[in-house]
Amino acid sequence: MTAPDEFELIRRLFAPLARHPGALGLIDDAALLDCPSGEYLVLTTDAIVAGVHFLADDPPDLVARKLVRVNLSDLAAMGAAPVGLLMAACFGERVTTSWLEEFAEGLAADCETFGVSLLGGDTVETRGPSTFAVTAVGTVEIGKELRRSTARPGDRVWVSGTIGDGALGLIAAQNLATRLSPDHVAFLADRYRVPQPRVALGRELAGVATAAMDISDGLVGDLGHICAASGVLAVIEAARVPFSPAAAAAISVGLGEGLTTALTGGDDYELLFTAPPTFDERIAAIAARIGARLTAIGTIMPPEDNAGGGSDGSRVQVIGTDGRALALARGGYRHFAS
Amino acid sequence: MTAPDEFELIRRLFAPLARHPGALGLIDDAALLDCPSGEYLVLTTDAIVAGVHFLADDPPDLVARKLVRVNLSDLAAMGAAPVGLLMAACFGERVTTSWLEEFAEGLAADCETFGVSLLGGDTVETRGPSTFAVTAVGTVEIGKELRRSTARPGDRVWVSGTIGDGALGLIAAQNLATRLSPDHVAFLADRYRVPQPRVALGRELAGVATAAMDISDGLVGDLGHICAASGVLAVIEAARVPFSPAAAAAISVGLGEGLTTALTGGDDYELLFTAPPTFDERIAAIAARIGARLTAIGTIMPPEDNAGGGSDGSRVQVIGTDGRALALARGGYRHFAS
Repeated sequence: MTAPDEFELIRRLFAPLARHPGALGLIDDAALLDCPSGEYLVLTTDAIVAGVHFLADDPPDLVARKLVRVNLSDLAAMGAAPVGLLMAACFGERVTTSWLEEFAEGLAADCETFGVSLLGGDTVETRGPSTFAVTAVGTVEIGKELRRSTARPGDRVWVSGTIGDGALGLIAAQNLATRLSPDHVAFLADRYRVPQPRVALGRELAGVATAAMDISDGLVGDLGHICAASGVLAVIEAARVPFSPAAAAAISVGLGEGLTTALTGGDDYELLFTAPPTFDERIAAIAARIGARLTAIGTIMPPEDNAGGGSDGSRVQVIGTDGRALALARGGYRHFAS
Repeated sequence: MTAPDEFELIRRLFAPLARHPGALGLIDDAALLDCPSGEYLVLTTDAIVAGVHFLADDPPDLVARKLVRVNLSDLAAMGAAPVGLLMAACFGERVTTSWLEEFAEGLAADCETFGVSLLGGDTVETRGPSTFAVTAVGTVEIGKELRRSTARPGDRVWVSGTIGDGALGLIAAQNLATRLSPDHVAFLADRYRVPQPRVALGRELAGVATAAMDISDGLVGDLGHICAASGVLAVIEAARVPFSPAAAAAISVGLGEGLTTALTGGDDYELLFTAPPTFDERIAAIAARIGARLTAIGTIMPPEDNAGGGSDGSRVQVIGTDGRALALARGGYRHFAS
């Protein structure tokens, strides 16, 4: 590092992003937020680590944008409107001033895109991989928040966008998808590096979705979390799961574990939600209004009488194109799996 | 790691700490907080890295408690009452299940001590040193928040507790203070490992202090930040700075850089504040009421006509016992210093 010092660095790169008056120009020990009457402040935190959640040689502006977006995706899953971000940045030894400048450019671009302000932060050094933790702050009208624990038997299971691009994109971003066309490689890698948080969709789903979450750890595993939180089971049909042309090509050539990677891999940051069939038309109208692809892929089922234990993943059955249940190697991404 | 998986780990160790109803049992993507009318929510984030902010072989419960306390210290500096914490935990390869259990015990102990709830979090793996980022949430009555930018010429400069114990304690904790008595070594190392955030004091200072911050990067450097934010200068007298018996002994044997380390080293987490001399009696009453040691160590001065640039540290003059200005080697802890 050749930067003069932490405080000068913060001032020069990050203070211009602190547009919210409560950020106090990043000068003070903390930010001040007032919460409109009748609303909740919504708070979520997510960390990303070089070599785990992004590639160490990913373009720095895209690292910053992924950092912002994975957190905004959590706000979207709650139906919240984003307000701002606090960032704890642990810069590794490979970080140079120009890396920082590009990182700040990406941060600025996404603060602009999503209308959020930097609210506070901490910058420290680490001898390990660069690590960034963001706490995202949003607001949601009290009673309109989306939860995981409220799915009901008979609900349809919906997803936004296309599934599997993130996990297949990680393989593509590592130049390991040699049997795919350059266009498909570029599409998937971009989906891995720059997820699209479904902020507008999340806000539209208030009063429509019975339960929601974002798909960060894989479709099957995350649906398992909704099922466990709601005390229900789910069945989805692999043939109904929407795949991008690039993901379909990747599955057909068996990239990674093919369909298993697409259904259980992480990093999609699409919304997964449940809603009663009576809302099909409302959901179609939402899709048309905000230009999102929304697909019903299955059904929430009542719990079995003897379904006391079992992992979250075992609560989800995936039916293959032959009408038989698929045996998936894993139920979703697990940190610390032994 | 031999822990079964991330979700089971979170459930078992951390969910019991999520007592606030808005934490939603850590099941959802985000926490929901309502803010009482007439109050601000106060948000701050701080990260600690093994080998930088704590020692890799520090007892895990003390690492957790330091993590909580450095963040509560920032809330104290704003005059806020703590409510809860979001934690992004990046566990390194050396972390075992028993390490995690002890870490969670420390976290639980301090959640109890300070009446705060875990509100959310993220746990990830890192191939580097364990790294933890906490966002602390508090509340303060609107208009009673303490700021850095509001010190006025003629104000006295005050500090709580004793100064220099943190930086000297880091040396002691590394078993490098061989010329000190075991009692002094233990006292200083404890001050480094388990800081005492001045939460009660911060709340008492509303309407009394003109400006405040916590001393995390060193007395002289942090006073420089108040001066820069307020557009003023400061003069402090080394002879008035309160030292613990252990720190005084360490300075007398020249531990580290002696007086320079004590005045410019980090990790004290005492409050630094300014107040007009007319409030001397009120401040003495506060000290008596909450059992805190509060010491006036200097004066805020008007800016010089030609004081355009210069570092924050150059805004602070330290007068030695001989009445002459001390030349300190550095103005405070700097990350990324070249």
